[in-house]
Amino acid sequence: MDRPSFESDYTKGTHPLILEALQKANLVHSAGYGLDEFSEAAREKIRIACDAPDADVFFLAGGTQSNAVMIDALLKSWQGVVAASSGHINTHEAGAVEFCGHKVLTLPEHFGKIYADELETFIRDFFADENFEHMVMPGAVYISQPTEYGTLYSLDELTAISEVCREAGIPLYMDGARLAYALACPANDVTLPDIAALCDAFYIGGTKCGALFGEAVVIPQHGLVPHLLTQVKQHGALLAKGFIAGIQFDTLFTDDLYLKLGQTAMNAADRIRAALIRKGYELAFGSPTNQIFVVLEKAQADRLSEKAALGFWENLDDGRVIMRIATSWATTDEEVEYLISIL
Amino acid sequence: MDRPSFESDYTKGTHPLILEALQKANLVHSAGYGLDEFSEAAREKIRIACDAPDADVFFLAGGTQSNAVMIDALLKSWQGVVAASSGHINTHEAGAVEFCGHKVLTLPEHFGKIYADELETFIRDFFADENFEHMVMPGAVYISQPTEYGTLYSLDELTAISEVCREAGIPLYMDGARLAYALACPANDVTLPDIAALCDAFYIGGTKCGALFGEAVVIPQHGLVPHLLTQVKQHGALLAKGFIAGIQFDTLFTDDLYLKLGQTAMNAADRIRAALIRKGYELAFGSPTNQIFVVLEKAQADRLSEKAALGFWENLDDGRVIMRIATSWATTDEEVEYLISIL
Amino acid sequence: MDRPSFESDYTKGTHPLILEALQKANLVHSAGYGLDEFSEAAREKIRIACDAPDADVFFLAGGTQSNAVMIDALLKSWQGVVAASSGHINTHEAGAVEFCGHKVLTLPEHFGKIYADELETFIRDFFADENFEHMVMPGAVYISQPTEYGTLYSLDELTAISEVCREAGIPLYMDGARLAYALACPANDVTLPDIAALCDAFYIGGTKCGALFGEAVVIPQHGLVPHLLTQVKQHGALLAKGFIAGIQFDTLFTDDLYLKLGQTAMNAADRIRAALIRKGYELAFGSPTNQIFVVLEKAQADRLSEKAALGFWENLDDGRVIMRIATSWATTDEEVEYLISIL
Amino acid sequence: MDRPSFESDYTKGTHPLILEALQKANLVHSAGYGLDEFSEAAREKIRIACDAPDADVFFLAGGTQSNAVMIDALLKSWQGVVAASSGHINTHEAGAVEFCGHKVLTLPEHFGKIYADELETFIRDFFADENFEHMVMPGAVYISQPTEYGTLYSLDELTAISEVCREAGIPLYMDGARLAYALACPANDVTLPDIAALCDAFYIGGTKCGALFGEAVVIPQHGLVPHLLTQVKQHGALLAKGFIAGIQFDTLFTDDLYLKLGQTAMNAADRIRAALIRKGYELAFGSPTNQIFVVLEKAQADRLSEKAALGFWENLDDGRVIMRIATSWATTDEEVEYLISIL
Repeated sequence: MDRPSFESDYTKGTHPLILEALQKANLVHSAGYGLDEFSEAAREKIRIACDAPDADVFFLAGGTQSNAVMIDALLKSWQGVVAASSGHINTHEAGAVEFCGHKVLTLPEHFGKIYADELETFIRDFFADENFEHMVMPGAVYISQPTEYGTLYSLDELTAISEVCREAGIPLYMDGARLAYALACPANDVTLPDIAALCDAFYIGGTKCGALFGEAVVIPQHGLVPHLLTQVKQHGALLAKGFIAGIQFDTLFTDDLYLKLGQTAMNAADRIRAALIRKGYELAFGSPTNQIFVVLEKAQADRLSEKAALGFWENLDDGRVIMRIATSWATTDEEVEYLISIL
Repeated sequence: MDRPSFESDYTKGTHPLILEALQKANLVHSAGYGLDEFSEAAREKIRIACDAPDADVFFLAGGTQSNAVMIDALLKSWQGVVAASSGHINTHEAGAVEFCGHKVLTLPEHFGKIYADELETFIRDFFADENFEHMVMPGAVYISQPTEYGTLYSLDELTAISEVCREAGIPLYMDGARLAYALACPANDVTLPDIAALCDAFYIGGTKCGALFGEAVVIPQHGLVPHLLTQVKQHGALLAKGFIAGIQFDTLFTDDLYLKLGQTAMNAADRIRAALIRKGYELAFGSPTNQIFVVLEKAQADRLSEKAALGFWENLDDGRVIMRIATSWATTDEEVEYLISIL
Repeated sequence: MDRPSFESDYTKGTHPLILEALQKANLVHSAGYGLDEFSEAAREKIRIACDAPDADVFFLAGGTQSNAVMIDALLKSWQGVVAASSGHINTHEAGAVEFCGHKVLTLPEHFGKIYADELETFIRDFFADENFEHMVMPGAVYISQPTEYGTLYSLDELTAISEVCREAGIPLYMDGARLAYALACPANDVTLPDIAALCDAFYIGGTKCGALFGEAVVIPQHGLVPHLLTQVKQHGALLAKGFIAGIQFDTLFTDDLYLKLGQTAMNAADRIRAALIRKGYELAFGSPTNQIFVVLEKAQADRLSEKAALGFWENLDDGRVIMRIATSWATTDEEVEYLISIL
Repeated sequence: MDRPSFESDYTKGTHPLILEALQKANLVHSAGYGLDEFSEAAREKIRIACDAPDADVFFLAGGTQSNAVMIDALLKSWQGVVAASSGHINTHEAGAVEFCGHKVLTLPEHFGKIYADELETFIRDFFADENFEHMVMPGAVYISQPTEYGTLYSLDELTAISEVCREAGIPLYMDGARLAYALACPANDVTLPDIAALCDAFYIGGTKCGALFGEAVVIPQHGLVPHLLTQVKQHGALLAKGFIAGIQFDTLFTDDLYLKLGQTAMNAADRIRAALIRKGYELAFGSPTNQIFVVLEKAQADRLSEKAALGFWENLDDGRVIMRIATSWATTDEEVEYLISIL
């Protein structure tokens, strides 16, 4: 087998059903800017999947864009967003949030997660500080599911964070770049309706979950963000051919395709994880989703990388490295078996 | 025939050859962020088509985004961009340039165009003003080809503007959202190599010219804009699956597809234009490209609109309206004949 | 007499009573950030002068700063501010409004003023445009009293503009950089209580009206702008020693000093204006306040400028020039007589 | 004695010599925007004091403003500024740096200081990261002298940081809000010429060091920041009556007043510090400048605060509190003796 890639979950095109839908709709005239019938159908299916009948749903092109647009839309001009220090917006988005004028206020990360009690203490102490008006006020909270480390918030954890936010009157935003892999994970107990009930805004990731591109931003409470189309356009993020995204999400939310895509990745990840453990590899930490972080000797990493593309994650002080193995909606049984065979 | 649409050039999906290419490449592993082989092939073909062997080429998702990212990248933080008062960035981009902190400095528009002599006078007077340091300095010039009114800069006009810019040390940027229709227009004498020689940055539009989405930003002088990838990401504009855009532009620049697409639209537009003139319709102004602006009695407009979707442009003071008829890469002979038959 | 200066109204220090007050308070301990007793006393006197008992009053260091902070505070992130094309924010503030991410939407200027009916039409047409969500929405209206041309809004004109704004739900903001000269002008019929009743925010200029520096921002409706201290600090505009501004405004609003300062300037201006007319000079337009715009032959301008410093305003096409003569709170009788003597 | 204040160093007006100079210059005509003779004289004296004959010197109104303007001016649009996590820009400036679009990249603080080796490692690791183009690049380094904790960089430490910056091609910026107190501190070995030689920009604080308001930004290498006047104006920070700041700095840099002011504060602080130690008080950490941080029982703090105003700094976990005692240019012997008497 040609050197397969486990580097990331966005190295292949799109699920065949999406290509088919694009083909079928290709020469139909559609309205621009997401006002078309495909987008409307997709929105309605997402509302049903989220049990959020009044939700505003908007399709954007990518994850950093969705984060920047929505965080900017949720914050007042003088506020900042709270995130784990490891949060994608704090580390790997080139300062897109700051570009919009907002500070990222960091909390300690626990394998990518923030803790409700630490969030509560942070907010309470902040507003108890007599100088707080000279500081950047927390105006939204950012989390991701799964996190940067592939870990998951449990329903209890998410509920606790949501309660802290609502008590403080601060909206909770969830980055769902890889949400399909969270939803399909056996260890997960947080459903789309849970997310819609507990978060004030979130996005359902398409780019890393089987679409050519695209993320579906969901705002469960209709009208919470005024003039979102204008704000999206101001950010340069409005898709003229919004129907291209609409067709994709319409397909992803037909016959549970989004969940099935996630299951494909999870089955592959679980088989690989089991094989690694069986063969005595050390996992860096317990990430239950489609990303596996394995500790390797440098020579071992080099040898494996010759045969299969892995993602580099981190150098350890003892000379070893952490490599990331990511499965996806497009990972095949052959690829999994091959990878296991070379471990 | 079902009511065909001439409302705009972005109402249908993509050229069948692009769908075919996406299908073919669908399950190939590609590197992210535009570092893949399809993007590299597309870049090389664009360099050849532009006769700009050192050009930096970058694929973005849309036009407003390309304008905002590139204008922000070309300007110093305290500078503004000069544009016709009718320029898209000044009117219909929701303030995306101002969102980046920059003022749009307007010149009079002449059917969408600026004049080199007026630009020269503006720049000379600006820096002759003893208070110019209290004002927003012109730091880039924005034009579009074709313009908002479907008109074209001639090679002489573009050369004159370019000379003014270079004399003043101010980069010239061209918005080519509909560039295919300019290039294929019989009245046009400005080639891609001309544009690359005369402009400091421009984009070759895909979204309105046969792609699912995407624009190819071209910077003829390699390195003129430092760290463009980072700046693109900071704007939330970096495509994780850049190869999806790469595949499309690779296809558009194979076997002159981009020009051929333009010709399809131009043939359709020229036939419609001829029919309109033959039947005594009044054209609002002489736009030679794929957009036709026709002056209609209100009743006439309503009657036609029942049978074919036209674009509303403007109410005239005398009660008549200007309607826009836009053809595209996807306009069929049947649609043209039908439209002519109902005129 | 040494060549006196009529170049502008900010060439001398401060009114002697202000220096005296600073001297007297110099070694008193005061709280920082405007929380001191002098500032509170000044605020209370301003509330009384404006007949606005609930007004929020904030002291800032300069005019461009006040405009930028307040316009940014009044606008939503996606909105722009409407102003006359000649408005200071549109021409001579180096893009400070755009730096905050907002577009300046221009209306025609009529000797520096906007007309209520043109504003009404602009707003109505804007929201009637089916594409308005792709455009920058008007979110505040900027005027100045007196205007850039030294002209005044009458009470009728201001009332009409205010009514248009309130009908549209758009706040009205007045730049009062030279407000003392408006209030003291015989032709003026707009009082501070009128302004407080008709505008949603405005500033009472100190820098050009007898203070060392400083402007008093007034927001008649308490709480209209939330967390203004934080927004001011975010703009780098919070004065640590706010009491220095407080002492000055406390003095300016004791025993009507602010009005008296204006009268000094107005008496001087009226005498000069009368002399100019008597001697047959041509005034460029009828500005009734402390700025006089006189049309001169170039040689005449040079000859006068040798003896007294005048402000250059504009070159006319016929070779003549418009020069500005500005009086101020510090203009002396001797200076006026000398200037008249050399006319 | 009336309850004296040791809460901060900006609670009194200005040094009598400055008031005298303002008085003397009060009715002289001066050019606007810092183009006057007082400002030029002040600039020249500062150049001499810094042994930086080509330096650009600019007067701004406050510290947060100076930091925001200069950091924005030094950074490229996609870069961030490195600072100690305790740095004023990171904690108490309401996100003024982020408002300009830039991220603050934090390093660990050691009693307010960053360490050269940690800075070096941060920069090296940053650019060694294969993903660095997706992250916010360090584009300037911020330090303050004295720091937030009243501590000082030694000449060796400052030299080491400067070398790391120059090796990396990253400008070094120093916040000198309380620089007079550093320069006058017996423990200090860093002179103004050292700072000018080792930093690329810094400001000499006036607001907290005896001026009514104002900071002198110094850029040793002429022209390093282009069009600074325009950038200052764009930030709303240009003083129309720049001469008011110029007069103050002209006075501060005549006959070493700036140093003498510092010595007054240092003498007072050293006497208080000695008394505290003598009387067995616990100092929170060894700050040698005009700020003293003393650990008190809550009841003790309350008792002292009744008699003299102290600054609250921090609650400790054991129930005790840290209070700040700040002396200033205006602290009198009587105040010092009184404070010592009540300890």
